[in-house]
Order: sequence, then C-alpha cells, then structure tokens
Amino acid sequence: MTTRFREPKTLAQLAMLVGGQVHGDPSYSVTGVATLMAATKNDLSFLTNGSYRPALETTQAGAVILSQEDQAASNTNAIISDNPHAAYAKVATLCVPQHNNPDGEIAQTAVIHATAQVHPSAVIGEFVVVGAHAKIGAGTVIHSACSIGDSVHIGDNCLIYPHVTLYHEVVLGNQVIVHANTVIGSDGFGFAFDKASWIKVPQLGSVRIGNDVEIGAHTTIDRGAIDDTIIEQGVKIDNQVQIAHNVVIGAYTVVAGTAAFAGSAKIGRYCLIGGGATFAGHITVCDQVQIAGMTTVTRSISKPGVYSSGTGMMPATQWRKSVVHFRNLDEIVKRIRKLEEQGPHD
Amino acid sequence: MTTRFREPKTLAQLAMLVGGQVHGDPSYSVTGVATLMAATKNDLSFLTNGSYRPALETTQAGAVILSQEDQAASNTNAIISDNPHAAYAKVATLCVPQHNNPDGEIAQTAVIHATAQVHPSAVIGEFVVVGAHAKIGAGTVIHSACSIGDSVHIGDNCLIYPHVTLYHEVVLGNQVIVHANTVIGSDGFGFAFDKASWIKVPQLGSVRIGNDVEIGAHTTIDRGAIDDTIIEQGVKIDNQVQIAHNVVIGAYTVVAGTAAFAGSAKIGRYCLIGGGATFAGHITVCDQVQIAGMTTVTRSISKPGVYSSGTGMMPATQWRKSVVHFRNLDEIVKRIRKLEEQGPHD
Amino acid sequence: MTTRFREPKTLAQLAMLVGGQVHGDPSYSVTGVATLMAATKNDLSFLTNGSYRPALETTQAGAVILSQEDQAASNTNAIISDNPHAAYAKVATLCVPQHNNPDGEIAQTAVIHATAQVHPSAVIGEFVVVGAHAKIGAGTVIHSACSIGDSVHIGDNCLIYPHVTLYHEVVLGNQVIVHANTVIGSDGFGFAFDKASWIKVPQLGSVRIGNDVEIGAHTTIDRGAIDDTIIEQGVKIDNQVQIAHNVVIGAYTVVAGTAAFAGSAKIGRYCLIGGGATFAGHITVCDQVQIAGMTTVTRSISKPGVYSSGTGMMPATQWRKSVVHFRNLDEIVKRIRKLEEQGPHD
Repeated sequence: MTTRFREPKTLAQLAMLVGGQVHGDPSYSVTGVATLMAATKNDLSFLTNGSYRPALETTQAGAVILSQEDQAASNTNAIISDNPHAAYAKVATLCVPQHNNPDGEIAQTAVIHATAQVHPSAVIGEFVVVGAHAKIGAGTVIHSACSIGDSVHIGDNCLIYPHVTLYHEVVLGNQVIVHANTVIGSDGFGFAFDKASWIKVPQLGSVRIGNDVEIGAHTTIDRGAIDDTIIEQGVKIDNQVQIAHNVVIGAYTVVAGTAAFAGSAKIGRYCLIGGGATFAGHITVCDQVQIAGMTTVTRSISKPGVYSSGTGMMPATQWRKSVVHFRNLDEIVKRIRKLEEQGPHD
Repeated sequence: MTTRFREPKTLAQLAMLVGGQVHGDPSYSVTGVATLMAATKNDLSFLTNGSYRPALETTQAGAVILSQEDQAASNTNAIISDNPHAAYAKVATLCVPQHNNPDGEIAQTAVIHATAQVHPSAVIGEFVVVGAHAKIGAGTVIHSACSIGDSVHIGDNCLIYPHVTLYHEVVLGNQVIVHANTVIGSDGFGFAFDKASWIKVPQLGSVRIGNDVEIGAHTTIDRGAIDDTIIEQGVKIDNQVQIAHNVVIGAYTVVAGTAAFAGSAKIGRYCLIGGGATFAGHITVCDQVQIAGMTTVTRSISKPGVYSSGTGMMPATQWRKSVVHFRNLDEIVKRIRKLEEQGPHD
Repeated sequence: MTTRFREPKTLAQLAMLVGGQVHGDPSYSVTGVATLMAATKNDLSFLTNGSYRPALETTQAGAVILSQEDQAASNTNAIISDNPHAAYAKVATLCVPQHNNPDGEIAQTAVIHATAQVHPSAVIGEFVVVGAHAKIGAGTVIHSACSIGDSVHIGDNCLIYPHVTLYHEVVLGNQVIVHANTVIGSDGFGFAFDKASWIKVPQLGSVRIGNDVEIGAHTTIDRGAIDDTIIEQGVKIDNQVQIAHNVVIGAYTVVAGTAAFAGSAKIGRYCLIGGGATFAGHITVCDQVQIAGMTTVTRSISKPGVYSSGTGMMPATQWRKSVVHFRNLDEIVKRIRKLEEQGPHD
C-alpha cells in the first residue's frame, strides 16, 4: 500500500506540517490518506472539490482536511486550512515511497561517455546512455534506458523516468521531473519546398527547461529552428502534449493532456490550457488566459479571460440537422435580411 | 509473406474451424488469405464490409467467407458464416508467425531483481529491466527493452512489446497485450496552487488492467491519485490514447486512436469511442454509448445512443462565412425574435 | 553553438551553394546564421516569412538571404534567391554538427542476430537490438536503444533516433529519418465482435516507407490488416501523428503534428495536412488538398482546395450563447420559414 504514512501521525503533527488548525482531538492518530468514500477511522481524508461535499456527512474518516467554511458540515476531527488542496498535497507526500537506490549508485550496464560529468550523488539506472560532454547534477535520478544526448545539461534533484530521450544540447533546470518515454529536443518540423519536393531546414536551436517544471509521459518538445524552444520555470505539462519549435511557454502555466502548440506560439504566464487545446503558429497569448479543453486557438489573445470553441455534444440525430444549417448559415442570414427589408407593413 | 497458412487447408477444415458451412467444393484447398481485390485462386477471401460488395463479382479468389445473404451474389466457393468478420479473424490467426523464442528463454542482457518472480515459462527479451518484487506469469512474453517497475504484477500469457514502461505496482491481468512504447502508471496530473506556484499532489494509487485487454502503441494510462485507475476486462484501446488518473473504462468498451479521458471520467461497458473523442473530467457515461470521432464530451450521458459534436468539414471560403455567423448567432436570433414580434400585420 | 559554420564563408561561396546572386560585397565573410532580430555583423540572416519584414530595417545582420522583391527594403549585403526558404535550408546545413561515430562502428552492447545483414558502413548504437534476417543499408545510423524486428529492411543513409521500435517485416527506403520513440508496424486496430466480447483480427500486412521520408517523434504507423500501410516517397510527418492500418499517404504530402488517419484512408500527393486534423476511415482525398488544422475530415474530397471545420475561438461567455443556438438551429430555421410563409402583407 502506498497510501500509508511511513509511521502514524497525530493531527497536531499534520496541522503543523500544513500550517492548519486542528478542530477536535489534536492527539488523534492517523496512519494514511483515503478519499471520503473509502476512508476508515485510521485515515485522514480531505474535501478539495465541492462536488464531493455530500460525502462529508457519511464519511467514516478519522479526520478530514477542509476549509473553515466547510467545517460546520463536518462531524469528525478536522484540520482546517486556507488551502485544503495544498494541505492535502503536503500530507500525501508522507506516503510517497522513497526510491531505494542509494545516492551515487551507477548501474553497471550504464554507458557513460568519458567526457560526461556526473555528480557523485546522482543515480543512473540500467542501460542509460550518457553522451559526450553531458552534465548531470547533484541528487538527480535517471531511471533505466534513458538516452541522454551529447552536451545535455541536467540540473540538480531532477527525476527522469525510463525511456526518456533528450537530444543533444538540451538544458534542464533543477527539480525537473520528466515522465516515461518523453522526447525533448527532436527536430522542429521545417521543410522548404524546392522544385517538386521538400528539403529539410536544419533545426539548429535547442530546448531550455526552467526549474520546477514537470513534464508528463509521451510528450514531445522540439528543438528550435535557430533560437531555442523555451519552457519557463514552474510550468506543468501533462501527457501526450506536442510543443513545436520555438514555442515559449510562460512561467507557471499549466498544460493539460494532448494539447498541441504549433511553431513559434508564445504563451503567457499563469495560463490554464485545457486538454486537447490546439494553438496555431506564430500567435501570442497574454498572461492569465484560460483555454477550455479542445479549443482551437487560431489567433492571438491579448486580454485575460476564458476562451472556447466547438459546438458542444449532442445526440447525433439532432446534431446532423444543426450541421446542415451551420453549412447554410450564410443563406439563412440572407433570408433574415430579406425579411427585415420587407419590414413591418403599414 | 505472413498471409500464408503454415500448411494448405481445405474449405471443409476451415469451415469447421469457424463454425460455418461450405458452399461449393469442401475439398478445395487454399494456402492463405487476401482481400477480394488481391486474391488469386489459391486464396481465401472475405466480405465483412458492405462497401466492398461490388468486388465480389470480379474477385479471382478461390473461396470467400461471407454471410448467407451475400452468398447469392458470389459465383465462387464460399464459407457461409453468421459472423463473417469473426470467422475471418479465426482463419487469419492461422497466418500469424509463431514467435521464435523458446518458452522460458531469458535474454542474458536482461536485469531481473533478485526478489522478482518470473514464471519458468515466461520469455524475457534483451535489455529488459524487472524491478523488485515484480511477478511475471506463465507464458508471458516481454519484448526487448521494457522497464517493469517494482511490485508490478503481470498475469499469464501476456504479450508486452518493446520499450513499454510499467511504473511501480501496476497490475495486468491475463492475456493482456501492450504495444510498443506505451506507458502505464505514470503520475496523474495533480497540482495544488499555493501562493504563486504549483505544488505536486503525490499520486498514490496505481493502475489495474483486466483480462483480455489490448492496448495500442504510445498510449498513456496514469496511476490514480489515491484509488486506482481501472481498465476492465475485454477493453480494446488503440494508439496514442490518453487516460488520466482515476478514469474507469467499463468492460468490452472499444477506444479508437488519439481519444483522451480527463481525470475521474467513468465510461460504461460496451461503449464505442471514436478516434480523437475527448472526455471532460468527473463525468459518467452509461453502457452502450457510441461517441462519434472527434466529439467533445463535456457532460455526463445517461442514455444509450450515438452522440456527436463539431461542424463537419466545408470548403474554407464557405466555412469562414458560417463561422462569422456562428459567432453572431445570439444577435441573429434576436433579429428573428424582433421579426416575430412585429408579427403578421392585419 | 550549433549555429556556426564549421569555417567562415564568403557571400560569393554561399551564393554559389544556393544558386543565388550577391547584392553588395561578395567577399564579405560570415561565420553562421541567425534570425533578423538576433543577428550580428558576423551572421547571415534571412527573410522567408513576410510577417518578419519590418525587422529588415533594424537588423544588424552582415547579410540577408531574401527575394528580389524584398531586396529594395534592405540596406545590407544580400544573397538574392528565387526561393529564400530553400536557400536558407542549404546554408543552415553547413551548421549541422557531424555525428562523431566513425563509419561502421557497432556498439559493443548492441545485440545483432547472426542472420541479420548490417552493411559495413552502418553505425549501430548502444543497446540496439537487431532481429533475425533484418537488413541495414550503407551509411545508415541507428541511435541507442532501438528495437529492429525480425526481417525489417532499412535502406541506405537512414537516420534512426533512440527508442524507435520497428516491428517485424517493416520496410524503410533510403534517406529515411525517424525521430525518437516512434513506433512503426504495431498491430492495426482490428477486432470482430463475437457473442459478448471482441476477438482479435490478426494484422498480417506490414508497413512500407518510401525514400526521403521524415517521421517525427512519437508517431505511430500501424501495419496493414492484409495489404501494407504505405507512406510514399518524400512524405514529411511531424510528431504524435497516428496512422492506422492500410492508410496510404501520397508522395510529398506534409502532415503536421497530432494529425490522425483512421483505417484505409487514402491521401493524395502534395497535400498539406494541418495539425490535429483527423480523417475518417475508408475515405479518399485527391492530390493537392490543403486541410486546415483541427479539421475533421468525415468524407472523401475529390477537388483540390482548402477545407476547414470547427467554430473558431470565442470568449467563453459569448461562445456559450452561440452553442445554445447551434443546438436549436433546426428550430430557428423553422421560425424563419414561418416568417417567410407569413410573407409581406399587402
């Protein structure tokens, strides 16, 4: 079980950890975390999403992390927090298993170039390849079968999961997490049409990833054409995201799964990008923009706010009718104009 | 050629295999399978998609698998089946090359933890890493360069293609197929905003995959936040599908390529999910729902049926006009209301 | 720095390379390439995208590649070309670092089957697995940790990046580039419903890739059901593209990131497929068709031109109103018809 603390904790200890207040018995002891629906009296639970509020009445949890305003509806011990979601995150961290590789362990099967600089405290897994002039920082853990290209620089305390490919010269900051099979630094998609075929435009830039960035599994981030592709600090990127050459993603922006950014799109700071949202090339999005899932962003956005596209889902029989009319909207509007021109008769 | 049987088969033999009846010469012998367009007199062909019915008249096939009702239009030997598609599947299985690894072969380069339990009949390919306390069942074949995390349990007769990553504690049932480079058990996408940045919400659940599930290449299935992400038995998932934390996909549901499911979406049994369809988080879809390709499912569905979204494709010049009107639909409807209020004059 | 030539070049030398004319000083020497915004007097820059024309006035570049018509607006040395984009591509190629593996180097960790034929000049990286009866052509470079299946044929001068999986019998032409973690030859998605569950339809075809094809990272190309999946010569495919079984992509067509093609779609030659565009199965698209990004192509296209779908992006508050009306379009059109029937009163 990974949802148990390594040792039982009292509510007083946990409240101190998260900067909250205990309501009820501070000496009450819990052994792990669970959802409101699954919790037993030995568990600490939490309310961070309003849609689960009804479960507060029926939960068997020994204690619950919640906001001051939700506390009234709870009849169990509680840790009251201004930010229950962040408080839960801090508590749950106590349940994360420690990696069992001793610091500085290098797998015997790893192939590390003689010119690479691996910090003595870094951990390198089985079948990892580290290229010439690469640098790997203190406390960084590279899981099995990663390919680290020539002159790649990885900062301190990074965590790189299996089968990640970092092409030559890619730069990662500190505390960067990259999930399995992700590719960073592949060639941008650049071709020039010449007579009857396409010739490759060499992709001479690289990719720079800031501190505290997390990148999901199966994400692709292409190297820049000349300048670099840039992911600024604190950005969080989900799985299967495609980031083309020379994109810039501003600090602390969050990108949900399967989103895609065409070349040279510049995204601001503190944006929230929904799943499957797709951005045209060479556009600019300002800070604090929220893009709904599956939105097609075809032009620049200069005003913070929420943006959407699409038709919403419908039963297919009704949808087919609406689509026919959508096709004919220009004709429909002309019919309205004609009616208006006929005007009220008098 | 992989479309040949290992030895010639008579129509009588094949009809018995598929539970069908021979029309024509039961002793007629065929050596493999081919499409109606490509077949020669040595081939068995099939009609499983009505749009290829015209090819029945011109095919050179020695025999054809088809339904009773299509038999009238055929002038060659036939195997008549209530379910020609399933019958073809059974026949084609005779053409699949046998893997040439003897049972129980463990590649010398594989790195298997001393505490892992690998069944004596399992096959482990080159450069595979198997973590501590992992279990691998009878007859399971793991192709080269897979990373099997600590405490992963893989059932019997599974087939895992190269470069698959299974994170710690992931559980696979029996007869599960996982195609190349797929990732199962990566962290769900959970962050809590705290002051001016995002802190990671540890993902403490795992992923459980039922019996007889097939998962395509480059698919990602995230581990649950606390509870597990669940793929029930008999589910078939195509390539490049994204399944977020705590999604549940009900038994025998089929998911086409590039579909995506946001966190905690619950999908019913026997659903058909079209390619590129995307599901919002925390919604519920009942059994036997069919979602058209590229549909954005933004709310729960409680009634079986077919659902769609989108505008359909148009020539871009016409499309641009419709889009302008779509933007102005609210104004357009107001104009209609005004005309209605003016009413017929009398 | 990868944006430097290996040695300085005069404009005369570079103009000869690209088939252009020097405007200004032919003996002027440059040491690398840079964008108009970043260039110094030692750099050659270029104008290939009209939106960057204003930068021509302020650039510090020592020389610029541009068209005859843009030359008037430039006040620096220039290389005038009929096709500045192709000219830039040729110049930038001088900046690409040479791979530092000597021809014919086979990593000691590679596992190559005794029956495989590897050309003496091919380069094989660490942890590569090459299957039985595979053939690898002259000058081809296979980076670390690729899995090359049984009977795969790879032509001459190909470049295969890390963690690529080629399933058995896949055929690649000459000068093919495949980026990291891409999968070619996985099973097509074929299942027949039989009683209450799905049985697998064996995928007996393979994949054939023509000469001069480039395939991005994380792309999946499934093997055919019986016939092969075919990518014709000169096709360029971006990252995270999904190509299902028996798709044919015609010569010199370009496919941007995250596009997806369902089974048996046939795409013509010289098409331009935008990012995220999705194609239904069994449709045919003629030559020289341009599909806008995120378009859902649900039927065949027989006329060259530009095609689109979707609603365009809007502020969410306005969008919600339009979506409600879209749902009701059939009723709206009936209201218009009623108004028309009431007619002008006279």
